[in-house]
Amino acid sequence: MDSFEKRLNEAADRVTVALDALLPRAEGPESQLNSAMRYAALGPGKRLRPFLAIECGRLVNADERGLLRVASALECIHAYSLIHDDLPCMDDDDLRRGRPTVHRAYDEATAVLAGDALQAVAFEILAHPDTHNRGSVRARLVERLSRACGPYGMVGGQMIDILGERQELDISIVTRMHRMKTGALISYAAETACILRDVEPQIRRALEGFAHDLGLAYQITDDLLDATGNAADTGKAVGKDAGQGKATFVTILGVEGAQDRSQHLAAQAKDHLEPFGARADTLKEAVDYVINRRS
Amino acid sequence: MDSFEKRLNEAADRVTVALDALLPRAEGPESQLNSAMRYAALGPGKRLRPFLAIECGRLVNADERGLLRVASALECIHAYSLIHDDLPCMDDDDLRRGRPTVHRAYDEATAVLAGDALQAVAFEILAHPDTHNRGSVRARLVERLSRACGPYGMVGGQMIDILGERQELDISIVTRMHRMKTGALISYAAETACILRDVEPQIRRALEGFAHDLGLAYQITDDLLDATGNAADTGKAVGKDAGQGKATFVTILGVEGAQDRSQHLAAQAKDHLEPFGARADTLKEAVDYVINRRS
Repeated sequence: MDSFEKRLNEAADRVTVALDALLPRAEGPESQLNSAMRYAALGPGKRLRPFLAIECGRLVNADERGLLRVASALECIHAYSLIHDDLPCMDDDDLRRGRPTVHRAYDEATAVLAGDALQAVAFEILAHPDTHNRGSVRARLVERLSRACGPYGMVGGQMIDILGERQELDISIVTRMHRMKTGALISYAAETACILRDVEPQIRRALEGFAHDLGLAYQITDDLLDATGNAADTGKAVGKDAGQGKATFVTILGVEGAQDRSQHLAAQAKDHLEPFGARADTLKEAVDYVINRRS
Repeated sequence: MDSFEKRLNEAADRVTVALDALLPRAEGPESQLNSAMRYAALGPGKRLRPFLAIECGRLVNADERGLLRVASALECIHAYSLIHDDLPCMDDDDLRRGRPTVHRAYDEATAVLAGDALQAVAFEILAHPDTHNRGSVRARLVERLSRACGPYGMVGGQMIDILGERQELDISIVTRMHRMKTGALISYAAETACILRDVEPQIRRALEGFAHDLGLAYQITDDLLDATGNAADTGKAVGKDAGQGKATFVTILGVEGAQDRSQHLAAQAKDHLEPFGARADTLKEAVDYVINRRS
């Protein structure tokens, strides 16, 4: 394991420990709900969004305790979105990160509720005074996250994605879909640094540009993995997009075109980090990791 | 229509107008999502939780614009919970307020997403600077709402409710279930007054006690309506609890016992309002309205 992956895993472990303390214990007559939330949020995962929030926050010297809470909230939102995406009425997946999806391990009703509850917990974590001593900062963290995961962000993008199975989308709508579905939350992860600390406009623009390009490169890589990866590596079903006749970057640009696009975006993402010099080396490695990952 | 119902309807209309402006327009490739959100949140409904927030807020002279935003956020959460509760994997209802449920009017995937998005929008509304000029107040509104609708509140209660279809619950667990499922959000509606304004401990305790008793009386009435009402009045399927062998206040206490209990709670709820004198007359009428309603 190279030093970047070690650093990624260390952050993932810290977030898992924090979430273990923040999520409700599996007790009481509702324990099945709490157990399903923990199954989804504490299970294996790269914790890429939390990692981005932590690393971007460190670039601007944000408080470590606040960063860990922001990272935990991000993982709750991500886990909730995966639970609901996997439902039979959505992508209908049985496997996620190599394990049964929540509605397979529990049942559909529990999966719907566990996703709902994880969304609520994410906002509770951000709004709590432990996240930042200024209420206006906490409120801003909430406001921007709700925007990133609501109808203008993640959930809106998922709606376009589903409708895309029934009608042909052009490249501009596919780009918009990904920008909302995956990009908004990745952008938010980087933006939290600028909320936790007052930063200069130049720094804000650098982090925003970085997050934008990385988010899109991430999704193109996802499409490539679905088209060319295998289930053993990815831990989930592959070849689903083509089977469903879904428009993706790969069906529109072809495998090579999509690879070119993701390389180009990766280079651009790293360029945005130049103002930080060597302090941003870990984030630059994160870019390579994102586009070269096999799962 | 008596003057209380007129006042209730006026508040409902104001909240609907506010929500119409706050919810995303049904435009763009994701318009089906926004359309479903609007269908659920702007359709007919008593808007009881928003009404309680507005009336309690007026008792402590809270700012009207902030109250209307809090009321709108409450209705978003309530609408989201109804959409998800009605899903085939949950209560599997085709009818809600006399109209097709969201998954019948649209489809299941859209219903899951519309609920998810309405939850996010609720927090966005609260966290926005227009709700209150102090960030700490906005953060507190978010923190308490997320608590009231997360695993310790509404969603946790819904989990117990579903599990109750498969096993017998005793009166203490049924009470706990209702306290979480319905009571937490009703309590929150009253509590927002104490967050928006700094109030004395005596006032806070009065509003908390009022909300607690009203919430339970509300749910007992729901159980009574399911057992003794008809679909034409209630606008939804009735007799479902007994059909599913579910423990409710009616199956445990009997119809008369449940009626007694709800009368007792109603009297107690009104007693809590004594410190406000005649200024709380509307809220006292609201208590009678809740336990005497036929839908």
